[in-house]
Amino acid sequence: MSSASLVNRQVYLQDRPVGIPQARHFGIRTAAVEPLREGEFLVRNAFLSVDPAMRGWVNAAANYSRPVEIGAVMRAFAAGRVVASRHPDYPEGTAVMGMLGWQDYAVDDGSSIRRVVRETDLPLSLSLGVLGLNGLTAYFALTACGRPEPGETVVVSTAAGAVGSIAGQLAAARGCRVVGIAGGPQKVALCRDEFGFDAAVDYKAPDFEQALAQATPDGVDVYFDNTGGHITDTVVGRINRHARIVVCGTASVASWDPWPEGPRIERHLLNKAASMQGFLAWDYEARYQEALDVLAPMVRDGRLRYLEDILDGIESAPGSIADLYTGANRGKRLIRLEGA
Amino acid sequence: MSSASLVNRQVYLQDRPVGIPQARHFGIRTAAVEPLREGEFLVRNAFLSVDPAMRGWVNAAANYSRPVEIGAVMRAFAAGRVVASRHPDYPEGTAVMGMLGWQDYAVDDGSSIRRVVRETDLPLSLSLGVLGLNGLTAYFALTACGRPEPGETVVVSTAAGAVGSIAGQLAAARGCRVVGIAGGPQKVALCRDEFGFDAAVDYKAPDFEQALAQATPDGVDVYFDNTGGHITDTVVGRINRHARIVVCGTASVASWDPWPEGPRIERHLLNKAASMQGFLAWDYEARYQEALDVLAPMVRDGRLRYLEDILDGIESAPGSIADLYTGANRGKRLIRLEGA
Repeated sequence: MSSASLVNRQVYLQDRPVGIPQARHFGIRTAAVEPLREGEFLVRNAFLSVDPAMRGWVNAAANYSRPVEIGAVMRAFAAGRVVASRHPDYPEGTAVMGMLGWQDYAVDDGSSIRRVVRETDLPLSLSLGVLGLNGLTAYFALTACGRPEPGETVVVSTAAGAVGSIAGQLAAARGCRVVGIAGGPQKVALCRDEFGFDAAVDYKAPDFEQALAQATPDGVDVYFDNTGGHITDTVVGRINRHARIVVCGTASVASWDPWPEGPRIERHLLNKAASMQGFLAWDYEARYQEALDVLAPMVRDGRLRYLEDILDGIESAPGSIADLYTGANRGKRLIRLEGA
Repeated sequence: MSSASLVNRQVYLQDRPVGIPQARHFGIRTAAVEPLREGEFLVRNAFLSVDPAMRGWVNAAANYSRPVEIGAVMRAFAAGRVVASRHPDYPEGTAVMGMLGWQDYAVDDGSSIRRVVRETDLPLSLSLGVLGLNGLTAYFALTACGRPEPGETVVVSTAAGAVGSIAGQLAAARGCRVVGIAGGPQKVALCRDEFGFDAAVDYKAPDFEQALAQATPDGVDVYFDNTGGHITDTVVGRINRHARIVVCGTASVASWDPWPEGPRIERHLLNKAASMQGFLAWDYEARYQEALDVLAPMVRDGRLRYLEDILDGIESAPGSIADLYTGANRGKRLIRLEGA
């Protein structure tokens, strides 16, 4: 394939948002694909990932990664196949997942690749969800940080979401009582009916605090926290001695500028000899295969259920982040590129 | 010794304080010492302990232990010697430390004893300080929770105090850069001159934040936190990736009713994949000897320095807690009982 003839559509950052990125903050342009140099290969992206973390990537505030520059292709995970190669480790036809950006094509030297996708019996899209960072996050945040024991109560926030739903199912498989927190009756029903949690409560309901108390009669041993904010404050009021809170995200806090205040947590942690730990998935990248060896068989035999929320066409990318914060989507949000 | 002839002076809780306990909240009375039953022994207390935790013990708010009841002898650690015994494990002459209360004499069956004091070459008072809960807390909170590596920066709050000064010296012995936070120039000087910390900063000074930044040019890897509140907020702004915050106390927060607010910590922990863990010493009681085997030799050869702040006579007990919060005392506060 001659890369010179390809037209690469790219979604780039046009304007820096304050808070949640909206469609107007992005532009779409076409760019030529540069010829491959020795050690490079060309990936045709098939699926682009849409992640809550993107808000942090484009905001100016200090974060765990540098902000995307104005004019740059939007930073994103994507999965695709190598369509031309001058790199011995990535021959044509290789399925890959990595930080390939919101674009049709990516030229890479391997440094952006997170992994070669070897589960070719399963849909490639899963490498961005249940067998991607979502699964990795759920698996390691739960098992390495939360460390739930059989019989313990595990509470999960954004429990119907791409990470929370996996974390809850993994906890259930370990013999824990799993209580999901989700927004609205449909997502609460998903937690119970689709993901099989023991109980689920609606944080938007006026009786959230009482409902959570009823759903956790023995208190909370592990809190898998994707929201921060008021939801977390409410769960913290129910933690047991030696509880473990794992912070995987802060989706309920719309902005950290100005930095929001809340009830001080240090006394809760002291009284209960409890811990609160921030989780970053890349700390566990070297152990990715360990998670895949658990997750892929569970997907194959139906013990691990997942939902995908697939939008079609790169044109849907710019507006796809804001929705994540309104709770409109169900399951892992992806953009499918036509012709890939 | 006939216990019937003994008069036991007791300090009891007269009125439940809101906030910091003052002298007026306690009364002093005399009581007869009941005759020993089989399995009991009589301890003559020599030293009574005065601890910041006592505020929590007498306040009504939910805590990690039940509040002391009105009219009850004030809960307190004390060290003394067995003067009469009907218990085979505690013969007359045995030196003991335990939850023996603010009183001259305690009848016990062993359930209140934390340990038999075997370092008879060292002052008995040390069993309430550097070789007591202070030393145990410093040792395990630092080594089991903080886990400092050589070359890392360890920040300690209430650094001139009974726990902080030990934690800092243990961290220095591990090859860490140790930065103390203390209130006022005298305590800052103590940290440097008496305890040998690399640097010390005054949280009461207007340039506290800048001074802390200057003292921690490579950021903060371990924060041994005895204060909570604003001091903690300032330190948290300087934590490194994978930092460990160990909460041993919340001395800077005068009251938890109403529960105070502060900058939300979840995002800091997430951005840095850092942890914040509450520490309760009794989780490590079974490993007490491990700490003593490290601490006692360091005390004997002068590598571990400590200060005692000894008040004379049980009459000084009621007013002795409030002072801890004004920063008036230096070192571990004790009450020495005459004639013991």
